[in-house]
Amino acid sequence: MLNHKIKKKLLPFALVSSVAVASLSGISTTAEAKNNSKNNPEIKNVIFLIGDGMGVSYTSAYRYLKDDPSTKFVDPTGFDPYLVGQQMTYPEDPEQNITDSASAATAMSAGIKTYNNAIAVDNDESEVKTVLEAAKEQGKATGLVATSEITHATPASFGSHDVSRQNMNAIADDYYEEMINGEHKVDVLLGGGTDLFIRKDRNLTEEFKKDGYSYVTNREEMMKDKSGQVLGLFAERGLPKMIDRTEDIPSLEDMTTSAIDRLNKNKDGFFLMVEGSQVDWAGHDNDIVGAMSEMEDFEKAFNAAIEFAKKDKHTLVIATADHSTGGYSIGANGIYNWFGAPISAAKRTPDFMASEIAKGANVEETLKKYIDLELTSKEIQAVKDASVNKKVSDIDTAIESIFNTRSNTGWTTGGHTGEDVPVYTFGPASERFAGQIDNTEFAKVIFDLLEKGKNKTVINDK
Amino acid sequence: MLNHKIKKKLLPFALVSSVAVASLSGISTTAEAKNNSKNNPEIKNVIFLIGDGMGVSYTSAYRYLKDDPSTKFVDPTGFDPYLVGQQMTYPEDPEQNITDSASAATAMSAGIKTYNNAIAVDNDESEVKTVLEAAKEQGKATGLVATSEITHATPASFGSHDVSRQNMNAIADDYYEEMINGEHKVDVLLGGGTDLFIRKDRNLTEEFKKDGYSYVTNREEMMKDKSGQVLGLFAERGLPKMIDRTEDIPSLEDMTTSAIDRLNKNKDGFFLMVEGSQVDWAGHDNDIVGAMSEMEDFEKAFNAAIEFAKKDKHTLVIATADHSTGGYSIGANGIYNWFGAPISAAKRTPDFMASEIAKGANVEETLKKYIDLELTSKEIQAVKDASVNKKVSDIDTAIESIFNTRSNTGWTTGGHTGEDVPVYTFGPASERFAGQIDNTEFAKVIFDLLEKGKNKTVINDK
Repeated sequence: MLNHKIKKKLLPFALVSSVAVASLSGISTTAEAKNNSKNNPEIKNVIFLIGDGMGVSYTSAYRYLKDDPSTKFVDPTGFDPYLVGQQMTYPEDPEQNITDSASAATAMSAGIKTYNNAIAVDNDESEVKTVLEAAKEQGKATGLVATSEITHATPASFGSHDVSRQNMNAIADDYYEEMINGEHKVDVLLGGGTDLFIRKDRNLTEEFKKDGYSYVTNREEMMKDKSGQVLGLFAERGLPKMIDRTEDIPSLEDMTTSAIDRLNKNKDGFFLMVEGSQVDWAGHDNDIVGAMSEMEDFEKAFNAAIEFAKKDKHTLVIATADHSTGGYSIGANGIYNWFGAPISAAKRTPDFMASEIAKGANVEETLKKYIDLELTSKEIQAVKDASVNKKVSDIDTAIESIFNTRSNTGWTTGGHTGEDVPVYTFGPASERFAGQIDNTEFAKVIFDLLEKGKNKTVINDK
Repeated sequence: MLNHKIKKKLLPFALVSSVAVASLSGISTTAEAKNNSKNNPEIKNVIFLIGDGMGVSYTSAYRYLKDDPSTKFVDPTGFDPYLVGQQMTYPEDPEQNITDSASAATAMSAGIKTYNNAIAVDNDESEVKTVLEAAKEQGKATGLVATSEITHATPASFGSHDVSRQNMNAIADDYYEEMINGEHKVDVLLGGGTDLFIRKDRNLTEEFKKDGYSYVTNREEMMKDKSGQVLGLFAERGLPKMIDRTEDIPSLEDMTTSAIDRLNKNKDGFFLMVEGSQVDWAGHDNDIVGAMSEMEDFEKAFNAAIEFAKKDKHTLVIATADHSTGGYSIGANGIYNWFGAPISAAKRTPDFMASEIAKGANVEETLKKYIDLELTSKEIQAVKDASVNKKVSDIDTAIESIFNTRSNTGWTTGGHTGEDVPVYTFGPASERFAGQIDNTEFAKVIFDLLEKGKNKTVINDK
């Protein structure tokens, strides 16, 4: 996708979906707030956090998992104080009506419904402008942070354009090649994916460095480096899940804080998208241990964003999901209990343990080493049975089953599900996302805020 | 439970849960609205609608089911414009951390966490005052409407007290015997349950009539009767589900409208609880046809409440669920599609069809008569196989399987699940339920509104 031109489509700012319109009539105070322009002009920065796959079962379960049982009432998560509503996630795909991450991210980045697989392109495959691009056009600094490959569907839909999410090499190329006002489009890129940047055909890390970017590959390098433009790649593909990470790999909070520090140097403000990418991956795997680990990683990143925004006072923070994953339920098989303790007892994901076992580690020792529970002989035997062929996926499933059964966690699918997902916002204009909204609403409102900011501040008017 | 006295516990008005407090800090406009007393004094009536089991998968699926496919965007349901947030449903039970309907309804009616099974009693089995009782104390008219037995857990937790939801005879007795200011506590009782009122030991319908209540047993009688006090029982136990009802049985909308018309005669206003009882029952049964039928019944009742409130301008309308049921997911088995059409093709519930078949009706003819789909020979054969023993539950499961498979509906349990559920509000003070709240918050705010109303209006100060 060399040198492709961005066809700037007119975005339907004036169009607000019928549901969004309807939502205004519900709560008069919210409606008034939405029309109250005094809430808008102060916005300088936008931090948009996406918990991939983080449906309401995940946000609820995470609260119960982290609750301090010594207090009478359940404690709120970092997200809870900021809940303002829910969003609809459906795509506009000729074949599927449950969204994938590409279509949902394009809705949130560009304000349009499109097909599953689409990376910031419309149903006719024409490219659509994203909020990150609009921010860059106004001289704002921009960043993408993820625990997946930084070229994965969600970040890609903010910083690149492609007919298919599968084309991750082309997406990496886009990050380098697509220029706005003579500058690279994304100033800060932090996540996984050296495989996509250092390839046989080219080495994008060298190209970025030539153009002044820092290139960092571990936590320490990232923390030391202060450049406003950085490419940080911490794994060949996706990062290990939080509880599997070694110290040299940054957390999502580390990357978020590092991104904010760099982007905030820009006097015209910034746009930053942060993805908790692997809540979804764990959901696909029906792995409740991995899912809760990734929820924690994402919550800490969210808390860091809120902390910055509270001090800054000119930062809008949004956190939401793109869809839910796995048909995950709190409770299963007729039992009226869901237990976080067995999940918290895991020191590594089932995937990690399965990998060790497949490589030859003793089953019983491995389980004992990484799970703080007295396992039954039946549970241990099931993992032994599953490990006969040394196939990671079989062993993984057997270990996951221990946690799913002990916690009473239910799953209906290895794919996505279509229910509405929660929306959390903080800062100026946060009330504009309140109520029942559509996923396209995020981009529409951000475009509108950028447009208003441009008209109000001459400095930003490039 | 003859002549038991209501021990009036002091309710913790001053205590607001930590989550609710935290929610104030999120959106400054909402926080301001919450503290803005000018939104409060006008409240005369409260209509509290509870969709039993109506978790976010149900409200989302119902939207997609009812959507007009000829329009570009998905149309909002009656609920959507009024979404203000979510609530936590957990009980305070020594053995279970996923709520039942009794504990959740007690939280919503009395503002306390209690054990599963508890009908407006605390963990020490002492009775706790409900918002219906507080309304009656202030001279307001009161009503309970449900499609279950009117003595079932949810309505019972507003209008009676018992250590166990199972004691439905005692609950019916409570409705008659517990007096407030010399009056029966509940003026309007509409739902199912003649079995609980006309018993060997006593006939409560006669006793109610002696005290001036109308007693109605079908839709026509209910519509004709205009009495301010009425007992309406339309089935021995629960009502048939909406799509199975004959014309003599009122819809939830009919009952809601009839209740409002009666209660609204009271110059001091009213409190009305309306339950869409059987969304949950269908969820327990993993019956998506029944669930969507009951969603429609509940939505129409909600719409009627909103219509009244919009004209009245002094009515607070709340709609929410007590918990979700069934681990229901939109999408299953890795498929990225959920189809409403096969569900809409059913003219009766699987239960209804199974009943007919168990009674001797021909399998193929019955399916053809009640399902507007070309069924495959395999689908028909599965129902035939299941009907060998003429056992309704086996046949029911086989028919449900057709709809679950064709719609890609997933289920993880025959019980409840613990995720947060949506909250919808309209009218004065609706902003007080915004954000992430606890289920006890409903009662706390309603008590507070009643208290403030009492202090403001001398007429009401009895």
